[in-house]
Amino acid sequence: MINQLVKGIKEKDAPIVVGLDPMLSYVPKHLVKDAFAAYGETLEGACEAIWQFNKGIIDATYDLIPAVKPQVAMYEQFGVEGLKAFKKTCDYAKSKGLVIIGDIKRGDIGSTSEAYAIGHLGTVKIGEHVYSPFTEDFVTVNPYLGSDGVKPFLKVCKDTDKGVFILVKTSNPSSGEFQDRQIDGKPLYEIVAEKVAEWGEDVMGEDYSYVGAVVGATYPEMGAALRKIMPKNYILVPGYGAQGGTGKDLAPFFNEDGLGAIVNSSRGIICAYQKDPYKEKFSSVDYADASRQAVLDMKEDLKNAFVK
Amino acid sequence: MINQLVKGIKEKDAPIVVGLDPMLSYVPKHLVKDAFAAYGETLEGACEAIWQFNKGIIDATYDLIPAVKPQVAMYEQFGVEGLKAFKKTCDYAKSKGLVIIGDIKRGDIGSTSEAYAIGHLGTVKIGEHVYSPFTEDFVTVNPYLGSDGVKPFLKVCKDTDKGVFILVKTSNPSSGEFQDRQIDGKPLYEIVAEKVAEWGEDVMGEDYSYVGAVVGATYPEMGAALRKIMPKNYILVPGYGAQGGTGKDLAPFFNEDGLGAIVNSSRGIICAYQKDPYKEKFSSVDYADASRQAVLDMKEDLKNAFVK
Repeated sequence: MINQLVKGIKEKDAPIVVGLDPMLSYVPKHLVKDAFAAYGETLEGACEAIWQFNKGIIDATYDLIPAVKPQVAMYEQFGVEGLKAFKKTCDYAKSKGLVIIGDIKRGDIGSTSEAYAIGHLGTVKIGEHVYSPFTEDFVTVNPYLGSDGVKPFLKVCKDTDKGVFILVKTSNPSSGEFQDRQIDGKPLYEIVAEKVAEWGEDVMGEDYSYVGAVVGATYPEMGAALRKIMPKNYILVPGYGAQGGTGKDLAPFFNEDGLGAIVNSSRGIICAYQKDPYKEKFSSVDYADASRQAVLDMKEDLKNAFVK
Repeated sequence: MINQLVKGIKEKDAPIVVGLDPMLSYVPKHLVKDAFAAYGETLEGACEAIWQFNKGIIDATYDLIPAVKPQVAMYEQFGVEGLKAFKKTCDYAKSKGLVIIGDIKRGDIGSTSEAYAIGHLGTVKIGEHVYSPFTEDFVTVNPYLGSDGVKPFLKVCKDTDKGVFILVKTSNPSSGEFQDRQIDGKPLYEIVAEKVAEWGEDVMGEDYSYVGAVVGATYPEMGAALRKIMPKNYILVPGYGAQGGTGKDLAPFFNEDGLGAIVNSSRGIICAYQKDPYKEKFSSVDYADASRQAVLDMKEDLKNAFVK
């Protein structure tokens, strides 16, 4: 699956993943109105609105991008109905040829981590039948519990050719509270990165490992150090756009070959119609066109990452 | 809600939480057969079997214990149908007067953590209507992202009088890989514990904070140190029984008043009928009676924690 992701990035010349992290307040009024008309002001109604919103954005951008990253929290906040919309979104994006990175930040131990891996990346056998409960290609994993928490994911990844992105250095302001603490002369995030490189050796694709890392765009100087520690691990870079990262900050995350990183933008793309400079040009009815334009502009901006 | 948990522990004289972490292989054949007869060998069928299994255990133990801790991974592995069973289990246990600790180990940043908190502990407003998507009273939270990841949970907890247990030192063998690393002369888990104490000050119940900590029974000497760092934070102690912890290991986790800790047992209770010494006395049809006996025996064993 890492091979497919790299292929998609090359073919579309876009190391870009669109974060499908919808809040109900992001959804244009006409979609909310239609959904409430059909299902009432219910969890089902809200989730129908979100699903239609996602579908519009996928339809308007799938030819430009290799992958989408639905953030499961935004669906889980609506309970079971939300998770139906999550699955529907994953399945639809997949039908459009996109790679699905489930931003689930799970992590537990032993059979519990394995259960998450099975649910999101694997298959479950019931009697004589086999089912794929959720259908992501990658998921994000929290490393705090150590190898016991990560290896069960890798076991499932080996069976399914799927992958993980391990949280190394997150994009938020307080990420340093624990992640930056010095241990034997280096920060914790570097120690996690060394484990990511080690875990990844065992599940290699053609050029990159099935095990990637999450490193926030907001910390480019750390990105440079981490790129060296994890040369064969793809870096998923959140924090571009709304969180403050720009194209020129992103150079350190890439390898010399222009590969090795994929940059996420969520609100910057999916809420483009609510933001400058798009809100002047696009009405809420044309929200998906605004998202398409925002992807095109992001692609242009990312070229700055490669300007020497 | 911490007050209700402490009250339940006192009234039932049982600092015990039963982990509802079902695998399909734990469910007695007669329940699986009935569920498959009704729903086929489907995700729905598997989840019906699990739900009936849980219901039997809740019915047989609710008068003895203050709380249950469903592990969401075990449900999530069955996708949307699994999450329906998770919700049904939480709702039913609550109807029996039990406190629900959702073992979800979530953690993200800002509005994303808030979305998890809303989904599991809070309410979501849709138009003029308010819904509670999932209905836990506490959830477990992963601290790797720092305060940005935890505080949105506390914001929701303040509104709802609910609480969290933050992962501090987990029960698994490799938990030391990152958690034990020395930072300024103390292990990372102590630094996390200091933050737990700090976060907890702002959301105090009568004697204990709404913010608790997870510390594995498998590390009693660390439990003693952590008990001192977090005097007002309840400690949720996994790792008893199947993972190797015993009653006499548990003394360090409690305060002088016999409070301050609640001990989880999952497989030791829910799979009792498959294990010694219960499998001789209880058939699989009487699995729930075996679970009841295992709770009674655990209660007895925990008294050893208080023998001076």
